Amino acid sequence: MNETTRNALVVSAHSADFVWRAGGAIALHAQQGYGVHIVCLSFGERGESAKLWRKGDMNEARVKAARREEAQAAAEILGATVEFFDIGDYPMRADKETLFRLADVYRRVQPEFVLSHSQKDPYNYDHPLAMNLAQEARIIAQAEGYRPGEPIIGAPPVYSFEPHQPEQCEWRPDVLLDITEVWPQKYAAIQCMAGQEHLWEYYTRVALQRGVQAKRNVGITSSRNIVYGEGYQSLFPRVTENLS
Amino acid sequence: MNETTRNALVVSAHSADFVWRAGGAIALHAQQGYGVHIVCLSFGERGESAKLWRKGDMNEARVKAARREEAQAAAEILGATVEFFDIGDYPMRADKETLFRLADVYRRVQPEFVLSHSQKDPYNYDHPLAMNLAQEARIIAQAEGYRPGEPIIGAPPVYSFEPHQPEQCEWRPDVLLDITEVWPQKYAAIQCMAGQEHLWEYYTRVALQRGVQAKRNVGITSSRNIVYGEGYQSLFPRVTENLS
Amino acid sequence: MNETTRNALVVSAHSADFVWRAGGAIALHAQQGYGVHIVCLSFGERGESAKLWRKGDMNEARVKAARREEAQAAAEILGATVEFFDIGDYPMRADKETLFRLADVYRRVQPEFVLSHSQKDPYNYDHPLAMNLAQEARIIAQAEGYRPGEPIIGAPPVYSFEPHQPEQCEWRPDVLLDITEVWPQKYAAIQCMAGQEHLWEYYTRVALQRGVQAKRNVGITSSRNIVYGEGYQSLFPRVTENLS
Amino acid sequence: MNETTRNALVVSAHSADFVWRAGGAIALHAQQGYGVHIVCLSFGERGESAKLWRKGDMNEARVKAARREEAQAAAEILGATVEFFDIGDYPMRADKETLFRLADVYRRVQPEFVLSHSQKDPYNYDHPLAMNLAQEARIIAQAEGYRPGEPIIGAPPVYSFEPHQPEQCEWRPDVLLDITEVWPQKYAAIQCMAGQEHLWEYYTRVALQRGVQAKRNVGITSSRNIVYGEGYQSLFPRVTENLS
Amino acid sequence: MNETTRNALVVSAHSADFVWRAGGAIALHAQQGYGVHIVCLSFGERGESAKLWRKGDMNEARVKAARREEAQAAAEILGATVEFFDIGDYPMRADKETLFRLADVYRRVQPEFVLSHSQKDPYNYDHPLAMNLAQEARIIAQAEGYRPGEPIIGAPPVYSFEPHQPEQCEWRPDVLLDITEVWPQKYAAIQCMAGQEHLWEYYTRVALQRGVQAKRNVGITSSRNIVYGEGYQSLFPRVTENLS
Amino acid sequence: MNETTRNALVVSAHSADFVWRAGGAIALHAQQGYGVHIVCLSFGERGESAKLWRKGDMNEARVKAARREEAQAAAEILGATVEFFDIGDYPMRADKETLFRLADVYRRVQPEFVLSHSQKDPYNYDHPLAMNLAQEARIIAQAEGYRPGEPIIGAPPVYSFEPHQPEQCEWRPDVLLDITEVWPQKYAAIQCMAGQEHLWEYYTRVALQRGVQAKRNVGITSSRNIVYGEGYQSLFPRVTENLS
Repeated sequence: MNETTRNALVVSAHSADFVWRAGGAIALHAQQGYGVHIVCLSFGERGESAKLWRKGDMNEARVKAARREEAQAAAEILGATVEFFDIGDYPMRADKETLFRLADVYRRVQPEFVLSHSQKDPYNYDHPLAMNLAQEARIIAQAEGYRPGEPIIGAPPVYSFEPHQPEQCEWRPDVLLDITEVWPQKYAAIQCMAGQEHLWEYYTRVALQRGVQAKRNVGITSSRNIVYGEGYQSLFPRVTENLS
Repeated sequence: MNETTRNALVVSAHSADFVWRAGGAIALHAQQGYGVHIVCLSFGERGESAKLWRKGDMNEARVKAARREEAQAAAEILGATVEFFDIGDYPMRADKETLFRLADVYRRVQPEFVLSHSQKDPYNYDHPLAMNLAQEARIIAQAEGYRPGEPIIGAPPVYSFEPHQPEQCEWRPDVLLDITEVWPQKYAAIQCMAGQEHLWEYYTRVALQRGVQAKRNVGITSSRNIVYGEGYQSLFPRVTENLS
Repeated sequence: MNETTRNALVVSAHSADFVWRAGGAIALHAQQGYGVHIVCLSFGERGESAKLWRKGDMNEARVKAARREEAQAAAEILGATVEFFDIGDYPMRADKETLFRLADVYRRVQPEFVLSHSQKDPYNYDHPLAMNLAQEARIIAQAEGYRPGEPIIGAPPVYSFEPHQPEQCEWRPDVLLDITEVWPQKYAAIQCMAGQEHLWEYYTRVALQRGVQAKRNVGITSSRNIVYGEGYQSLFPRVTENLS
Repeated sequence: MNETTRNALVVSAHSADFVWRAGGAIALHAQQGYGVHIVCLSFGERGESAKLWRKGDMNEARVKAARREEAQAAAEILGATVEFFDIGDYPMRADKETLFRLADVYRRVQPEFVLSHSQKDPYNYDHPLAMNLAQEARIIAQAEGYRPGEPIIGAPPVYSFEPHQPEQCEWRPDVLLDITEVWPQKYAAIQCMAGQEHLWEYYTRVALQRGVQAKRNVGITSSRNIVYGEGYQSLFPRVTENLS
Repeated sequence: MNETTRNALVVSAHSADFVWRAGGAIALHAQQGYGVHIVCLSFGERGESAKLWRKGDMNEARVKAARREEAQAAAEILGATVEFFDIGDYPMRADKETLFRLADVYRRVQPEFVLSHSQKDPYNYDHPLAMNLAQEARIIAQAEGYRPGEPIIGAPPVYSFEPHQPEQCEWRPDVLLDITEVWPQKYAAIQCMAGQEHLWEYYTRVALQRGVQAKRNVGITSSRNIVYGEGYQSLFPRVTENLS
Repeated sequence: MNETTRNALVVSAHSADFVWRAGGAIALHAQQGYGVHIVCLSFGERGESAKLWRKGDMNEARVKAARREEAQAAAEILGATVEFFDIGDYPMRADKETLFRLADVYRRVQPEFVLSHSQKDPYNYDHPLAMNLAQEARIIAQAEGYRPGEPIIGAPPVYSFEPHQPEQCEWRPDVLLDITEVWPQKYAAIQCMAGQEHLWEYYTRVALQRGVQAKRNVGITSSRNIVYGEGYQSLFPRVTENLS
């Protein structure tokens, strides 16, 4: 990470989450010059690789390798860097060491904003755990007394990206991001996820719906031509000098 | 209103509400070149003029005149225009005519954003009524079939400004506006409210608290020097191309 | 109402509600020397008099008369005064005149606390309307500009008494009142409601359950012998000098 | 309505709402032998007929006539009957007469379930008003004292169908209806809405998303082949003898 | 468990919870031919055996033995099988091994629905922990990558049964189960809990109240004769083809 | 602790929290004759000692010593006893041993009420953890089977004191404590916190705002002269015989 760059951080429970849920934001900010760094806490080897397991002659190492490859290809298309913590999934558990490891990423990256999962997800317990970890690591990285002398971080806003069944996760978007311009990149990244083809069209439709809603929230008199969108829920108040 | 100006609309239940609760936003956007227009639905003649009533020889007309004068002086200091619907308070009631009158203001002003009260206030039933009216009039003004042929409005974001006892009103700010630069104007406008001196220091402290919170939400490493703030709760998702 | 007495006000949508839902509180405070005044907005003639209607040869006047008699008998047993606004039920509607009439009751009674219905009730739209009216009338009665010169009221706490299906009404008791001592009076008052015998045992069980819960919330080591209780939800923070 | 038929009632604020939001439920139950009756409170002549207004030489009567025709065609395709209250939209207001008119529909239809709008919709104030009216009319129709002697209704479950921006309306589906079998009818009915073509694909995608979610909520091991779905939120607890 | 049977799973924090809270559902489904299997995570030896501890000459082993006996007797009366994880209570803690043990139960039982505690209980921290464990184990058991090759489970609905003080636990029943027919079995099972006689009548009254509410939610015109009920809150949307 | 004294317990995540957030309640109840005992779980050495760390020549032991001294001085001024668990902060983690240690404090102190943090705080994960620990330890201390034979505790009410950004923590005060009389002691205790001078005026303003709100909630007709206040949120219903 170049120190003069503006950076962003994405914390993804499984290696494909960042693509479906935040691929547009990643590509858009990369295009705007941000250094976007992704931490995949696991490969989703147990819980999100059903198709791979159904192939014959599989084991955990092979599943992980396949998933790593897909995630790296997707990150590259989106213009981001990616690292893998490999802490396991289904269930995901994070000890203090993992917490400090992620806090150290925060200090290194100095993100201007952070993206992670919804705070509740009754379908997937790894997702809220990832968000919780992202939040607590942010707090640790802000503390002068953690590795005293190191530069601390500011207070980057944190956003929840969209879960699979938004209403069941009590997730309500208060930000609609216009990703029309980078949709080709997002869809190309989505296509890297060979094991989850059933989700390609699902998340294309999600993007179209959020696009229609974004258009509606700027008003039909607006000249903005929004087709694809991504929804985000902010966890902290934003500080601004303008309300338009 | 000049058609080339960017405009904003403030809907205030009583003639002083816009000062305590949104005076900073008004002055700040006026300074940024916005035409800010204020609609006072009532003068607060019954419910918010206790000190005037305690003077001898008072009647409703005199109370209203005194309150109108204060509000006009305050609006002038803030750099805004103001009009008075005079629909009465304690209780406030809005019929269809009032609704259309406000819808017509929307069409005339073509606001880029709208400020009004919290949606709940167990201490004051006029406040939520004003917000409800502001929301419904916005919807009417968006409809092609209302006064067909007239230019409709877009979808301006709507914000709740801060009520007197925020937690009891279930009001949670998701925007902290930095009003440091225009604090002198806001405090001068506050001082126009001769009948409510007990609130001058109360709302100065509110501004200082929101300022500290704004500072904390940009982080202590930030170079932004925020001292005074105003909190707002947005009712609709915002549409953006950047998450910083 | 004697001016030196401490008073309380109960606003009941239908003529029997105050018995099932607040009979214990009424009897208890009456016994403590309070003047308790009950306003029945309607007789419940349409919606809560099924048994009377099923008798032959009935009309609205007869139903009202029967209901009035029951309510008066119950109020007498509980030690309270009662008046009937007779504004109709199913649907209940309150105009400004009714609002002012109730505000005037507030000014006359100068209550130290107020009891009414839950703020939501999907089974009964008259109940939330009654509570809304009770709240708005309280606000009117506080305003110096309403009938200027008359003594205004303070800020009496307002409580929601228990609806028929508490969880469906989003009602959560934060006060459990020990009514063990006055249970005989409450049950005697309940028995005045000849038309609704199916509810006698229901509300006896409610009282026993709230009693067990009250006992549990003081702890099994407590010497307080609580058997019957009533639950209340407070709408405003209480002001105190002691947290025990 | 044949007395031996099982019936259902749909209360639609504007003349097209029932198609987008409940067309699948209507067609499905019609196919199961239910008599489904639709009440359109308005034609959506002001607020939901933008395309018609943009045609030259239009007035309210012509807009209403065009909308009525579309709605009747759609209802016929879905296998339902429809009536129009024509109470106006943007703003919609319901007086006691309208309330009783709808209560009388309840008594005539004796519905086994009721469908209407979400209870909150910041984009459209007519929608919650319609649901409120549907709920209060149901309560009136249950009261022995309303038109005494007439047969009252039972306690039919009430469901909110899906609003345009579900999360912003605090709408959470707790029922996913499998409408795969009747999708062709729903899509044919959708195509009757000539003035709102931009919504055809939007609501096709909604149906596909709810279908995927329904499939996920029965589990991937299930043999049920669900493609299209509709989401509903129930307002009352259901009573059952089986939890599978 | 016979593979052709339809099965259900109950996860009970302490050895008596399943009786008070779900005894009706267990007996009813057993009678309908379901194989109902109960997992008691602990015996409630510390927190729910006050009466046993007050006997002289007691130790943890004896308390556990007495509680096991009671629970087995109750399960037998209800027609269910029961196993004891014995992971301790007050505080209850679940490690990965316990999680996998419960996931393995899911795979073995292949339940069509799951019953456990409310998600919040400020009076008892073991209860939400049990529900959390039940939910996470269900997710693990659904994952192809957990013990690859074993048959996974589908997506059985999960219900929270009724806590001791429902409103304080933010528990809202959306299902009312008619248990009238099996009440004799439930009450017989309740009587096995010799150490907690104070709760026998409490939960009898709970059953009667839920019965009255169930009756009210089907409507007084219904011919269903419901006397006893149990309330449940569903955690996932149900998938259906009929809304009656 | 004298056995005949009435006692209270405060559980503070970091060594200064009890001063800002509950200093008034501590001084007030001490003055009323309560024995108030404070448990500081950590010294806030990492997360809340920024100013100390910025001094040269610092290490964790020196930071802790300085913070201990400040906290002891403050507790003495407030009239309370204090003990330090020293379990570390940023992140705070509590094992079973800490839980039992706190449960033992409960049994020794036999508090009549308990004060701790808000249940949610997105700015500080140690705060909710402290409250959770305080709640679970209370439950353990109530159990006959925990250290059988020892005297158990009753059911002392638990209150959340005010977090730094109340609305963001979903904290809503339902109790406003009048601390006017002991404000000098609270402010003297605040001044012991040499490392956090920026918070002195912040929390003075908080006290003034809560004082104004308390005054407003007793009503302007009240003779009570309230200037300074503290807000609390109760976690359990209170049991009472009087509603004034």
